Amino acid sequence: MITASEVRVRYAETDQMGVAYHAEYLVWCEVGRTDFIRALGVTYAEMERQGVRLAVADAQVRYHASARYDDVVRIETRLVEVRSRSVTFRYDLRRVPAPGIADGERVATASTLLVSVSEAGRPVALPAHFRALLEGAVRAD
Amino acid sequence: MITASEVRVRYAETDQMGVAYHAEYLVWCEVGRTDFIRALGVTYAEMERQGVRLAVADAQVRYHASARYDDVVRIETRLVEVRSRSVTFRYDLRRVPAPGIADGERVATASTLLVSVSEAGRPVALPAHFRALLEGAVRAD
Amino acid sequence: MITASEVRVRYAETDQMGVAYHAEYLVWCEVGRTDFIRALGVTYAEMERQGVRLAVADAQVRYHASARYDDVVRIETRLVEVRSRSVTFRYDLRRVPAPGIADGERVATASTLLVSVSEAGRPVALPAHFRALLEGAVRAD
Amino acid sequence: MITASEVRVRYAETDQMGVAYHAEYLVWCEVGRTDFIRALGVTYAEMERQGVRLAVADAQVRYHASARYDDVVRIETRLVEVRSRSVTFRYDLRRVPAPGIADGERVATASTLLVSVSEAGRPVALPAHFRALLEGAVRAD
Repeated sequence: MITASEVRVRYAETDQMGVAYHAEYLVWCEVGRTDFIRALGVTYAEMERQGVRLAVADAQVRYHASARYDDVVRIETRLVEVRSRSVTFRYDLRRVPAPGIADGERVATASTLLVSVSEAGRPVALPAHFRALLEGAVRAD
Repeated sequence: MITASEVRVRYAETDQMGVAYHAEYLVWCEVGRTDFIRALGVTYAEMERQGVRLAVADAQVRYHASARYDDVVRIETRLVEVRSRSVTFRYDLRRVPAPGIADGERVATASTLLVSVSEAGRPVALPAHFRALLEGAVRAD
Repeated sequence: MITASEVRVRYAETDQMGVAYHAEYLVWCEVGRTDFIRALGVTYAEMERQGVRLAVADAQVRYHASARYDDVVRIETRLVEVRSRSVTFRYDLRRVPAPGIADGERVATASTLLVSVSEAGRPVALPAHFRALLEGAVRAD
Repeated sequence: MITASEVRVRYAETDQMGVAYHAEYLVWCEVGRTDFIRALGVTYAEMERQGVRLAVADAQVRYHASARYDDVVRIETRLVEVRSRSVTFRYDLRRVPAPGIADGERVATASTLLVSVSEAGRPVALPAHFRALLEGAVRAD
């Protein structure tokens, strides 16, 4: 499964270089991840109420071009690996073409490794039903 | 009691107008408030572990001048009112003079009303000992 | 004119009280304001390239209820006053009802006064054509 | 050269998992980088006014433990490589021990590759004097 999410770059997300601040891309990846999980038929909000927490253990972002204020950025999210206590997502971020502005150009690629943790923050196995759901959505290519 | 805190404006906090984004000032007020409570001999982190939560119910900010990247902003915090279930803080934000840059100019004034809420988010009376501590620190002028 | 915008609360926007952090509401108001200006047939991004900058000079937020992670918040934006060098917007923020979660409850009301400033940050009159456009959209009630 | 910076975790930086949100670590790295450049005898703010811009082209963060509200996090910054148009920084983030709280535990390690870009965003060679300054501060181990 690959899901697509869109965010419009907020003024708050720009910096004085006139482009979106680099840390914001991780927030957009989180938007993509939330939508991916929703597309599985659950919500991360509900999962969390059931005690599942996915803590980011590793994040990598490669910036290809700048996203600018009011650009619409499309985040394609895929799940590339599921292990007993961790999952890895990959993200492809592109500008959505708009009249006179943008062009579908890739702005970034990213990946995040998330670890399943207990409320106390210790690594724990993913609940079996949730792991099965995730495994059915892996797309490694 | 009046406490003073300092923050150095982060690149992340600027926007493409080349100045600190207006919502960041509320974050700096929170830094001032945290330091004010610490100066009372408790920490808000500890208070929260004991079940006291102060939720912002009203916030007002008047912007006088721009704070810029790398400026040091000094936040003077005072507590102007304590009621059974709420407290009001006022903040005076000024640039700290630096060689060749700034000048002690006022960048903003702000006030926030905070309501004491239970873990479920309902208004509750402030614990008596904490209220007494706060009342001793009120400075209304 | 009244415009409506929607934001879904991001995990990044929550704090350890389990609700959206209070300063984020000002960012959502900015989303509403950007959409309002777009509905006038211009974009703030384009206006800024033409030298018009609207700097927030005063902001007030009254928090009525908590917005939570994954809630959809609807921002209704109206322009209540236009003067030669400033404009005032008002915002009404409500949760969008969702299965099993929310209810249309008002989460906040806010207003912001914005001043027209030059690139150097000094107050300047709004360009006549832009002022006329704004005046046509005022809705004071 | 290795520089040390400290940040105190703000309430704004926490999320509903009760820990600092993962994207904030990149902001703290930026604080470390700003201080590193200041320790060279220049400021990034001044460099930028002279036309030097360092855009983040790649960022990697490995999260070892959670930073929590009110923790003081110490960021050790070193410059590990300088090339004609890019520089690479590494960061070691640890909790500063405090009475009854923390312990010097490592919370994260990170690295960022920054590319020298023109005002228009195109890669350009670092100015010679600035490159020499940076090269004198490299510490590859």
